[in-house]
Amino acid sequence: MKNTEIRYLVEPESIKLKNPVLVEGLPGIGHVGKLVAEHLIKELKAEKIIEIYSPHFPPQVIVNEDGTVSMVRNEIYIWKSDSNSPDLLILVGDYQSVTNEGHYELTGTYIELAKRFGVKRIYTLGGYGIGKFVEEPFVLGAANSPDLVKEMVSYGVEFRNSEPGGGIIGASGLLLGFAEREGIEAVCLMGVTSGYMVDPKSAQAVLKVLMKALNLEVGMEELERRAEEMEKIISRLKETESQLMTPQYKRDEDLRYFG
Amino acid sequence: MKNTEIRYLVEPESIKLKNPVLVEGLPGIGHVGKLVAEHLIKELKAEKIIEIYSPHFPPQVIVNEDGTVSMVRNEIYIWKSDSNSPDLLILVGDYQSVTNEGHYELTGTYIELAKRFGVKRIYTLGGYGIGKFVEEPFVLGAANSPDLVKEMVSYGVEFRNSEPGGGIIGASGLLLGFAEREGIEAVCLMGVTSGYMVDPKSAQAVLKVLMKALNLEVGMEELERRAEEMEKIISRLKETESQLMTPQYKRDEDLRYFG
Amino acid sequence: MKNTEIRYLVEPESIKLKNPVLVEGLPGIGHVGKLVAEHLIKELKAEKIIEIYSPHFPPQVIVNEDGTVSMVRNEIYIWKSDSNSPDLLILVGDYQSVTNEGHYELTGTYIELAKRFGVKRIYTLGGYGIGKFVEEPFVLGAANSPDLVKEMVSYGVEFRNSEPGGGIIGASGLLLGFAEREGIEAVCLMGVTSGYMVDPKSAQAVLKVLMKALNLEVGMEELERRAEEMEKIISRLKETESQLMTPQYKRDEDLRYFG
Amino acid sequence: MKNTEIRYLVEPESIKLKNPVLVEGLPGIGHVGKLVAEHLIKELKAEKIIEIYSPHFPPQVIVNEDGTVSMVRNEIYIWKSDSNSPDLLILVGDYQSVTNEGHYELTGTYIELAKRFGVKRIYTLGGYGIGKFVEEPFVLGAANSPDLVKEMVSYGVEFRNSEPGGGIIGASGLLLGFAEREGIEAVCLMGVTSGYMVDPKSAQAVLKVLMKALNLEVGMEELERRAEEMEKIISRLKETESQLMTPQYKRDEDLRYFG
Repeated sequence: MKNTEIRYLVEPESIKLKNPVLVEGLPGIGHVGKLVAEHLIKELKAEKIIEIYSPHFPPQVIVNEDGTVSMVRNEIYIWKSDSNSPDLLILVGDYQSVTNEGHYELTGTYIELAKRFGVKRIYTLGGYGIGKFVEEPFVLGAANSPDLVKEMVSYGVEFRNSEPGGGIIGASGLLLGFAEREGIEAVCLMGVTSGYMVDPKSAQAVLKVLMKALNLEVGMEELERRAEEMEKIISRLKETESQLMTPQYKRDEDLRYFG
Repeated sequence: MKNTEIRYLVEPESIKLKNPVLVEGLPGIGHVGKLVAEHLIKELKAEKIIEIYSPHFPPQVIVNEDGTVSMVRNEIYIWKSDSNSPDLLILVGDYQSVTNEGHYELTGTYIELAKRFGVKRIYTLGGYGIGKFVEEPFVLGAANSPDLVKEMVSYGVEFRNSEPGGGIIGASGLLLGFAEREGIEAVCLMGVTSGYMVDPKSAQAVLKVLMKALNLEVGMEELERRAEEMEKIISRLKETESQLMTPQYKRDEDLRYFG
Repeated sequence: MKNTEIRYLVEPESIKLKNPVLVEGLPGIGHVGKLVAEHLIKELKAEKIIEIYSPHFPPQVIVNEDGTVSMVRNEIYIWKSDSNSPDLLILVGDYQSVTNEGHYELTGTYIELAKRFGVKRIYTLGGYGIGKFVEEPFVLGAANSPDLVKEMVSYGVEFRNSEPGGGIIGASGLLLGFAEREGIEAVCLMGVTSGYMVDPKSAQAVLKVLMKALNLEVGMEELERRAEEMEKIISRLKETESQLMTPQYKRDEDLRYFG
Repeated sequence: MKNTEIRYLVEPESIKLKNPVLVEGLPGIGHVGKLVAEHLIKELKAEKIIEIYSPHFPPQVIVNEDGTVSMVRNEIYIWKSDSNSPDLLILVGDYQSVTNEGHYELTGTYIELAKRFGVKRIYTLGGYGIGKFVEEPFVLGAANSPDLVKEMVSYGVEFRNSEPGGGIIGASGLLLGFAEREGIEAVCLMGVTSGYMVDPKSAQAVLKVLMKALNLEVGMEELERRAEEMEKIISRLKETESQLMTPQYKRDEDLRYFG
């Protein structure tokens, strides 16, 4: 395999979508985007139509629960709306590219597919790591047009002067740039997160904004349950940490007598 | 040399095999797969028919015992059965790819060759490193179909919920994924091993399973001999280690008098 | 995107330049070249005519002040002279290539564009890091012909026996080599700098030489202002450092009583 | 520049060589090969006929003594014999490939050129680093045929069971493998060296063997002079080291009183 490959699981011509919106949730900081996109797929019972393979993914297979294996890949699911919300294409996957050029090649592939299905708007989902635990995660945005920035503000998305300062790395960023060149609107929704671990609470914040933007409603229970579990883990971590900190402090105090 | 090259040592048309099975044993953890495949070649007196060269191998030559050199390569041997066991293609080599894309390119080459010779099943052999010495190595499996999982269990292979958690890296893993896309059955047999050193004992465990699966018998003496040698080295290592540990402890105790 | 792409923002045929000079100021040591080139663009109100995109740039977008994004790119601006100074093409950008081959590919692209516009001379701008703060920065040069060395000396550029010893890395260096092969004169002007931080003072030194060479005059206020700001930061850094050093010394002295 | 480029400095058809021998001396351990090849070029007044450029070389230019620059490249020189020694092609250069695939691509280029000029034998020159200073350097060999091993032994070359154990890395190794595939005899002559610094003494040892093999004589003075200089540096290093070691030893002895 020398190039990225697109495999259709259904006849491409049979896929009929009405001005669909593309939602990207590949792995990244706090797995925020991945959590949201996979939650959407599950709640909407979206249908997998495409698998993407690439020599720019890690050279390995993933072992499933039953002992069978799956090649590392990205996948596209579709969901057809019967209400005011738009049809959806949802892009998820095991990994992003591990090579520099691969990021450009794969994003090019995603955009070709978006064009083929007549996508007019793209939401890329990710996390924004700030290096400390976040009590009330909010959603930071970046978009490929000033009008889109304005619209997103109305859904509660925050935009901050040139933040993230290091830019947006990987598919969530590149898709915005590639989309602009093709005249497709695109916005990146980043849930603020510690960046230390998988963050379903941050994912909830992103999902809420996305639901408003898509005029859609899905159950949140699963993400809530996972967020609560994670909260317990974190509070236990904090407890342990404070226990470890206290005697350390005492020891330092004791030492003052010798100072 | 810009691409992977296949060199036939005999006229390709002259190679007649009956539904052959491909056995892959390239270098990896504990060199388990390599030990098994090279043992098979020696015991069966298999014939080398193909050499594979690639710019994705390390840029070097290997110096032989007599001062001559060999280019880094992979090799395919054949063995024709005159009993109930299947004809074999055995893939061995000095190295795997050192680049990410090379793993995909080379695995593509192996699969093209497998298809050319009508291979219907592939066994990939490797080690599963667990970071401590293993008294009784067993064989962990992963396969590209649930039926194959079931069959392998009957030969004593263990399958564990999503293990190895990090997936199976390199040709032993990718071959399973590539094979599935071509409708070829494939299973990876991993001998559990410390991962610290070459492990002929783990190789024996894998060979035993493979012999059952192939309905084949080969002498084990050579592997047994090497396993015994390695056992001696390990027990000496353990002894030295325990000697080093004891006085260290004593020294620490002595120091308490000054505490 | 598999290859470097050139995007014209105006009809290429409409661009009329008279024996233009190309000035390159991509990011590098102390951002000296970038500071000079961007200053020139601002002061001369140069017009952007080309954007260059490449899979050899980092896979990310940059977030602008207003929350919109820009793909990582290089840009070419033009300025038409109405005096004795030459028309200018100015090459700037966010990043240089992050891959080895990308440096060669991108420099090839720059030279193709230089040839297309009839460029006869190239100035590449950079910093020369010496690992300590520089009171009076001077400009070190390297050129692709002995005549050009001589000419540059007359503008105050210094040339030192085989310096920089490690060669000139990146576009500023490669452009000189590529230009020589096409019969284009090219010189690299390197402002001596600590290499620790962005250095507008070193940029001023380079700009002064460049102005002489181009027979051009532009305001220096902006660079002067930034240089003054940076001077303040450095003097505060030095102060803090000397404060940190003194008590440390004292503490060591105190300890001697216990020695 | 996307591919390796060969630039002829003279009309290729005008180059008439009689069964020439190719001598390769690119940079490597102790710069032994490079020292020998450059010495040969100087002593024989060999003529440069080819320059090789590649995107697999480091992306930089080298600054010459006069302030001009040179692109990183490899070069081929020729020398025509008027005696019993063979005509020579000598391959030298600033760097070897910095990418894995580049080593294979460049070696392919060298072999294409060797075939074009009817080369029947190749000598690759290098160093064999053993991690300690060598009083009497000898020459270790590896060849691509048993007959050549035998012949080389008659010139004083040593061959040791599978040494170097790590193989021969880079052009000096790959050329032997590539040559074998083309039916060209090739041998690698490695001067044993510490591997810590440029080693003209080891280069002398290699040159002596090469002169015997080529039935050629050249002056050795330059290499001798450089070897003597290096000897002085090393003996000063050793002196400093032993001075540093002695008090350390004494301090350890003192401590015994407290043991």
